[in-house]
Amino acid sequence: MANKYFDAKTLGFYLKYINNLSEVMSKPYYADHDMESMDMFIQSVNDFADKELFPYFQEMDEQPCHFKDGKIVVHPQVEKIMKQGGELGIIAASVPFEEGGLQMPYMVYTAATFILDAANNHLPGYAGLTLGAADLILNFGDEDLKTTYTPNMLAGEWAGTMCLTEPQAGSSLSDITTSAKPNDDGSYNIKGQKIFISGGDHEYLDNFVHLVLARVEGAPVGTKGISLFVVPKNRIEDDNSLISNDVQTAGDFQKLGQRGYCTTHLIFGEKDNCKGWIVGQENKGLKYMFLMMNAARIAVGRGAAGIVSAGYFASLEYANERKQGRKLNDQGKKNSAEEQTLITNHPDVRRMLMHQKTIAEGSLNLILLTSKYADLSKTAEEVEERERYKLLLELLTPITKTYPSEMGLQAISNGVQVLGGYGFCSEYILQQYYRDIRIFSIYEGTTGIQSLDLLGRKVLMQNGAALSHLMNEFNVTLKAAKTQNSLVAYADKLESKIQLAQKVIGHLAGFAQQGAFLKFTADANLFMEFFSHILLGWMWLDTASKACKALESNDSGYSQEFLESKIKLMQFFFKYELSKTSSLAESLMDDKTITLPTGVDAIAD
Amino acid sequence: MANKYFDAKTLGFYLKYINNLSEVMSKPYYADHDMESMDMFIQSVNDFADKELFPYFQEMDEQPCHFKDGKIVVHPQVEKIMKQGGELGIIAASVPFEEGGLQMPYMVYTAATFILDAANNHLPGYAGLTLGAADLILNFGDEDLKTTYTPNMLAGEWAGTMCLTEPQAGSSLSDITTSAKPNDDGSYNIKGQKIFISGGDHEYLDNFVHLVLARVEGAPVGTKGISLFVVPKNRIEDDNSLISNDVQTAGDFQKLGQRGYCTTHLIFGEKDNCKGWIVGQENKGLKYMFLMMNAARIAVGRGAAGIVSAGYFASLEYANERKQGRKLNDQGKKNSAEEQTLITNHPDVRRMLMHQKTIAEGSLNLILLTSKYADLSKTAEEVEERERYKLLLELLTPITKTYPSEMGLQAISNGVQVLGGYGFCSEYILQQYYRDIRIFSIYEGTTGIQSLDLLGRKVLMQNGAALSHLMNEFNVTLKAAKTQNSLVAYADKLESKIQLAQKVIGHLAGFAQQGAFLKFTADANLFMEFFSHILLGWMWLDTASKACKALESNDSGYSQEFLESKIKLMQFFFKYELSKTSSLAESLMDDKTITLPTGVDAIAD
Repeated sequence: MANKYFDAKTLGFYLKYINNLSEVMSKPYYADHDMESMDMFIQSVNDFADKELFPYFQEMDEQPCHFKDGKIVVHPQVEKIMKQGGELGIIAASVPFEEGGLQMPYMVYTAATFILDAANNHLPGYAGLTLGAADLILNFGDEDLKTTYTPNMLAGEWAGTMCLTEPQAGSSLSDITTSAKPNDDGSYNIKGQKIFISGGDHEYLDNFVHLVLARVEGAPVGTKGISLFVVPKNRIEDDNSLISNDVQTAGDFQKLGQRGYCTTHLIFGEKDNCKGWIVGQENKGLKYMFLMMNAARIAVGRGAAGIVSAGYFASLEYANERKQGRKLNDQGKKNSAEEQTLITNHPDVRRMLMHQKTIAEGSLNLILLTSKYADLSKTAEEVEERERYKLLLELLTPITKTYPSEMGLQAISNGVQVLGGYGFCSEYILQQYYRDIRIFSIYEGTTGIQSLDLLGRKVLMQNGAALSHLMNEFNVTLKAAKTQNSLVAYADKLESKIQLAQKVIGHLAGFAQQGAFLKFTADANLFMEFFSHILLGWMWLDTASKACKALESNDSGYSQEFLESKIKLMQFFFKYELSKTSSLAESLMDDKTITLPTGVDAIAD
Repeated sequence: MANKYFDAKTLGFYLKYINNLSEVMSKPYYADHDMESMDMFIQSVNDFADKELFPYFQEMDEQPCHFKDGKIVVHPQVEKIMKQGGELGIIAASVPFEEGGLQMPYMVYTAATFILDAANNHLPGYAGLTLGAADLILNFGDEDLKTTYTPNMLAGEWAGTMCLTEPQAGSSLSDITTSAKPNDDGSYNIKGQKIFISGGDHEYLDNFVHLVLARVEGAPVGTKGISLFVVPKNRIEDDNSLISNDVQTAGDFQKLGQRGYCTTHLIFGEKDNCKGWIVGQENKGLKYMFLMMNAARIAVGRGAAGIVSAGYFASLEYANERKQGRKLNDQGKKNSAEEQTLITNHPDVRRMLMHQKTIAEGSLNLILLTSKYADLSKTAEEVEERERYKLLLELLTPITKTYPSEMGLQAISNGVQVLGGYGFCSEYILQQYYRDIRIFSIYEGTTGIQSLDLLGRKVLMQNGAALSHLMNEFNVTLKAAKTQNSLVAYADKLESKIQLAQKVIGHLAGFAQQGAFLKFTADANLFMEFFSHILLGWMWLDTASKACKALESNDSGYSQEFLESKIKLMQFFFKYELSKTSSLAESLMDDKTITLPTGVDAIAD
């Protein structure tokens, strides 16, 4: 195991200096908090992660969750993350005071839970889904549901889950068949199966509050006929005792990674004795669920960002101890009589480490920015401002889910490569990160689905309003960067890439306008990669620009070395990452239709 | 498990039609064989793989090799691949008649063992390393060594290994410390430790013939002081009985993948009773070892190509059965009342499947072409021809090792993604391919080392002679493609990419000429990706060009659908893969030095 999994100074830099937490804190909604109390909260979560999460990371992989005698066996630390974490506020942090929460900025919640993800990505999901489920009840449930369930959930005494997927439906939610039949007492009889339910059952908590998508009898076909129900594992009797609600656990999926995070198969109403209570109105379930899904997507990006951070520090630690080979001189010769050199002195190893760090910090910056937009979409004073931030949030959500997940896969693979043969060995931790991170581009909507959301829905929504707001943000940064001599060339580069993006979007939008929707979205995945790299190029230029200012003013509290290293990472991103957009644009502008299921079938065998 | 792991028709197409096996077979050296006997050999290996390899693939992962009571426990099929495989000729296929082999073209050996790799990549290495070790003895050993060891090795009765890596040296072979002290009887006393020794020990064979790099006392420092020894696990007494040679097995590395292929830690001479016999002359060991290394590198590319093939068919099989969602019409709308559609009808799934197939077939084509160069470098009539093919072989070897390994990682990851959540589940096989393939860019010289070899050595060797021969091959294909109207645009595209390659090479060579070797090779990895994509672009154009001709002549024996699918894969490669070279060139032409260990240290934490 490595010793370090994230850098507190770096986290603080992106939270406070780059994304200006104090701007958010200045909103009246957060008047009861100050920066010091936020620091204390983050520090307490850090201490908790050091003590209760990080030391169990490898062990949780080696002793995976499993199904035994009708029960799911999980690692005892699951109880810690729920109860001790709940007490610390990791579930309730961003929930309003009036709902029993701590009313902190979502940015602070993201920063704190990023530490948990980096420490041990198998555990935070148990708490995160509980928050998501509680949020749904708080936003759309009636008073009864709120008072019955959410206090125990926010405290970590009861768990929450989201139950969407069914075997025959997968990503296609319009095909779910779980049924809900109204009873006279206002409850519904629930019947059906759900798979891939994260954190769906274990022995450490008294109750599990499942948020279940189901169809009320006679509902319209498709997504318009889906309703949302609270279906507890145990019903609460009038005397507050718990009795079984006929929710059976049928199994636990064994997985490539995240083996300490159980993935259950649940059967509702096998004995026709499973009751659910509707959340909000009938047939509006999917709309409600998307509140939770959007937060969950940011959380997935956060989890991937955490893994990349931890993977980076683990491979850096190895590289800083491992001597191998010799420095080459300029003639490409080495002196075998010299002592061996640290592998960090080999340019290719250095490139792989810088790649990891660039992805890790870019991803961290991205999840914090998106969280900031979430905060301001609720707390900005003017309604136009709130609307603007809401659009920016919607535009960035699929990217925030996808960029850390997809690029993180490459970063962690580089982390494995830094260790050479040892990277492939079980005794080193990189192989676990390599397995764990593979799920992030799949769950909560695959990269394919996020890409369709970005290109097919978000980019053009409201006549491109979100995109237009983002372009305004880009221009603010370009203007600031151009006041720095050392950044002018980079600002020009980014400007040309933004123009390229406009050209590509115009080209693709042409197909949409012609009604050729399939052609418009056929390469949505490539567009996701293209657009997210330009977005990150902007964020890196912004980071470098602010680092330059801090170097000038000399009163930021960050050392010269620290600030200069951020500028160098920006340069790395521009040389090795932003450059990828040229090829992606080339592919996106190539009109040859190859992947539509027409013409010659190249995958007939 | 899937049902299919490779396609025999496709293998035959690339072996015979694209790479023209009959050209090789026409050489006098192969006069004792004909196409029919080669087909029979490949078919017998195919039958063997169907029966003895493929059915055990998942089981060998679930019951990994391990160290118990001082011994390595491996799956019983290891005995089958050695003894039954040996009898079939999978070790001796390419070895000359006079050395006890079958004197088949290396192309045929590659085609046959590709089937084994695709069927179960945990097994072929046992046989492959035995061939490599036997080859070393046959090429550089004296008659005594040859007669003592190689007959049993070629028959699969004894195993061979290559023992290079030591804990303190890793890829830096100049730092090995295993020692060899001459005895009066001509043998040497061997003492030292070797790690990561594939197939190093198990219970199923009577003897293991280790080819060990060591230093004779007083040898020069560095690689110039390395000698090569045959060090058997058991010494052969005069009465042909075997007695222990003091080679201890100290452990088996537990790994992310290839868990059925043991990776041992060996200790030589702990009791000062380990004897070795020198191969060839003292201090020339590394030179000899490279004969084996080069063949091993082609074998690694072959293994990765096999995994990509198997991963493709496994994910295709899933996609051809899995219905999910509905086709969108051109307005982007779906009809929920319609039956669900196969996921192969979703453009993004189709893109991921075509990506896998393009990488699989491109890799297969590449390993066969390189094998052809190996054959012709030995059997072409004219010495200039042999020299030309030798240079082409040397140029292509690092690419043949790297392209299937690196691109295969991406292809298999797409394979996982096609299955969605199931791709992450242990009950589906894609996750095993994802773990297995991760070693290919590490062992037998990492991608970093292959890239230094390509750019720092091969591209400019003999004043660019190899490159110049390759350019001639490119021109032949360009000329042929331009006679096909449908290919002119692709030929023009490739031509512009070849010009781009010349520009990039000229730019980088400038640094070499200025004596700035570090700057010259700092981005060797990017150059590898850049150059291999242009190479593959050429191979795809050649494939499409030959497919067009076959369509015209209508007597190739391949169906119209089959031939047109190859042209479509070429189009896929040009749109989605060849386009990557634009960005890579942009990075390679960017002179900003970022990864050399000078200036601001961006990885200080």
